[in-house]
Amino acid sequence: MVESRHIGTGVVVDAAGGLKHAWGDVDRVIYPRSAIKPLQTLALIETGAADAFGLSDAELALASASHGATAEHVDAICAWLARLGLDPDDLECGGHAPVDRDADEALIRVGGQPGRIHNNCSGKHTGFLATALHMGEPTTGYITPGHPVQERLFQILSDMGGADLSRAPRGADGCGIPIFGMPLSAMAQALARMADPKDLPTDRAGAAKRIFQAMTAHPRLVAGSGRFDTLMMEAAKGAVAIKTGAEGMYAAILPGLGLGVAIKIDDGAKRASETAMAAVLTMLGVIELNPETPVLNAAGDAVGVVRMSGDWPG
Amino acid sequence: MVESRHIGTGVVVDAAGGLKHAWGDVDRVIYPRSAIKPLQTLALIETGAADAFGLSDAELALASASHGATAEHVDAICAWLARLGLDPDDLECGGHAPVDRDADEALIRVGGQPGRIHNNCSGKHTGFLATALHMGEPTTGYITPGHPVQERLFQILSDMGGADLSRAPRGADGCGIPIFGMPLSAMAQALARMADPKDLPTDRAGAAKRIFQAMTAHPRLVAGSGRFDTLMMEAAKGAVAIKTGAEGMYAAILPGLGLGVAIKIDDGAKRASETAMAAVLTMLGVIELNPETPVLNAAGDAVGVVRMSGDWPG
Repeated sequence: MVESRHIGTGVVVDAAGGLKHAWGDVDRVIYPRSAIKPLQTLALIETGAADAFGLSDAELALASASHGATAEHVDAICAWLARLGLDPDDLECGGHAPVDRDADEALIRVGGQPGRIHNNCSGKHTGFLATALHMGEPTTGYITPGHPVQERLFQILSDMGGADLSRAPRGADGCGIPIFGMPLSAMAQALARMADPKDLPTDRAGAAKRIFQAMTAHPRLVAGSGRFDTLMMEAAKGAVAIKTGAEGMYAAILPGLGLGVAIKIDDGAKRASETAMAAVLTMLGVIELNPETPVLNAAGDAVGVVRMSGDWPG
Repeated sequence: MVESRHIGTGVVVDAAGGLKHAWGDVDRVIYPRSAIKPLQTLALIETGAADAFGLSDAELALASASHGATAEHVDAICAWLARLGLDPDDLECGGHAPVDRDADEALIRVGGQPGRIHNNCSGKHTGFLATALHMGEPTTGYITPGHPVQERLFQILSDMGGADLSRAPRGADGCGIPIFGMPLSAMAQALARMADPKDLPTDRAGAAKRIFQAMTAHPRLVAGSGRFDTLMMEAAKGAVAIKTGAEGMYAAILPGLGLGVAIKIDDGAKRASETAMAAVLTMLGVIELNPETPVLNAAGDAVGVVRMSGDWPG
């Protein structure tokens, strides 16, 4: 018996926007959420901030991450902030408990309080601060609509997605920055242009390649041990960069195929977006996954499976 | 912009099975999961076990609970087990971290490990053990299909739901016990018979009233401070007993109206089942709730709302 069902939309496109695979209404407007982080990192490189501050691939991966706040993540971001002459109080994201369960427990054990540095977006925000510093812009208020940091992100999404976002629905993301509604197909095209940047301006093309290289060289920094993004990127051995987002979003960049993938699950469930992404990546030949993920109960017994329905690739 | 959507089925019936309100295919087969716990507690009383062991209302509430494993829950269940001459190792549910965040942190701080006693079902399992002991049945293996404890639960669901479950889909619940698929409408009727037990055998009618009384007298024991079941039962001041279940299940027992409510969200999301239950209870006049629940981001800013769509009561 099928106990629960998720419905979603998925699209695979090339850099020209050509539809390669489509499930559902691919022009539906979605908030891309954290799945768009690799695109947001473009600004950090294009402004010259990354070179001016000598950012490593590890730091570019952290800028593109929804990390688990393990010691590895937190220490690297603190060191980066210190090099900028800043500290975690300069981050304008709110604090939340580490996503990584072991990191959460370790923090509780030492009597620590979750802070802004533990926010899964703290690497991205450090990238925003680095860009603002380099451009001589105020660091205070960098998450505010209208701040040049946010204006650049808006322009990047508009340009890369090939969509007029001037009248797009707007909201606030979990970490406080403005977000814009965009068609899922436009998001996928933006990702495809990251994958196949030959028609982009030289600087942007170089930035896109550098971000892909950074993410696939450091899959653990993009998420964390045992997490889906990290596991998939490790399994694909450099063939794909993937990025999860809140509310059932998923993004993939596939340079070898010149393709971008965008997925939105209607109800926002991560178990469904992960299953859908695994199915699409398996169909595209970049990983080879068992189509069924066991569901374990509290005693560790397998009591069911999560799997794709027949409508999606398999 | 509506970012995510959930779809579900809901039904309100009377003890004769008469449909009072219905949304969606109310005869769909669902696994009732933990939403059925108040019905499972019937066996504890009907067998005479509750009286033989002098169980309090608090213990009957814990038997019907998905508790947060706060000290209040854990201490009471440990004391109950001790009175039975048993200990937490006799529970056959697996262990998991306390659902209550403060309880989870407290356990980590003292270097404790989550055990079976912290399983949200440990009160129910203690009730199963009490029943087996009282009936002279083996306590070992009480979660196994075919054990008299489980046979009685199957019979109760069949009788109360008025549905032949002999060919029902079967599975294993998160806590290890067998579960049976049943029509959502049958589940609602079983709940309505708890609410309006006048046509039930005297013993069962008394047991049904006692369970309702126990749950509404101890809403904090049924879930925990700040949790939805507890908040709703406190707000309704004895007018309703409600019980959540995994995978988007919800049950309500309304003696004043003689009604039962059963809800299943297709994708299993708790935020949706809670919103739907709040809307139904508001429509039925037993609580008065703001139809929109704010969504807060990590900084504590309101960035959206969860609300019912127009298709459901409002």
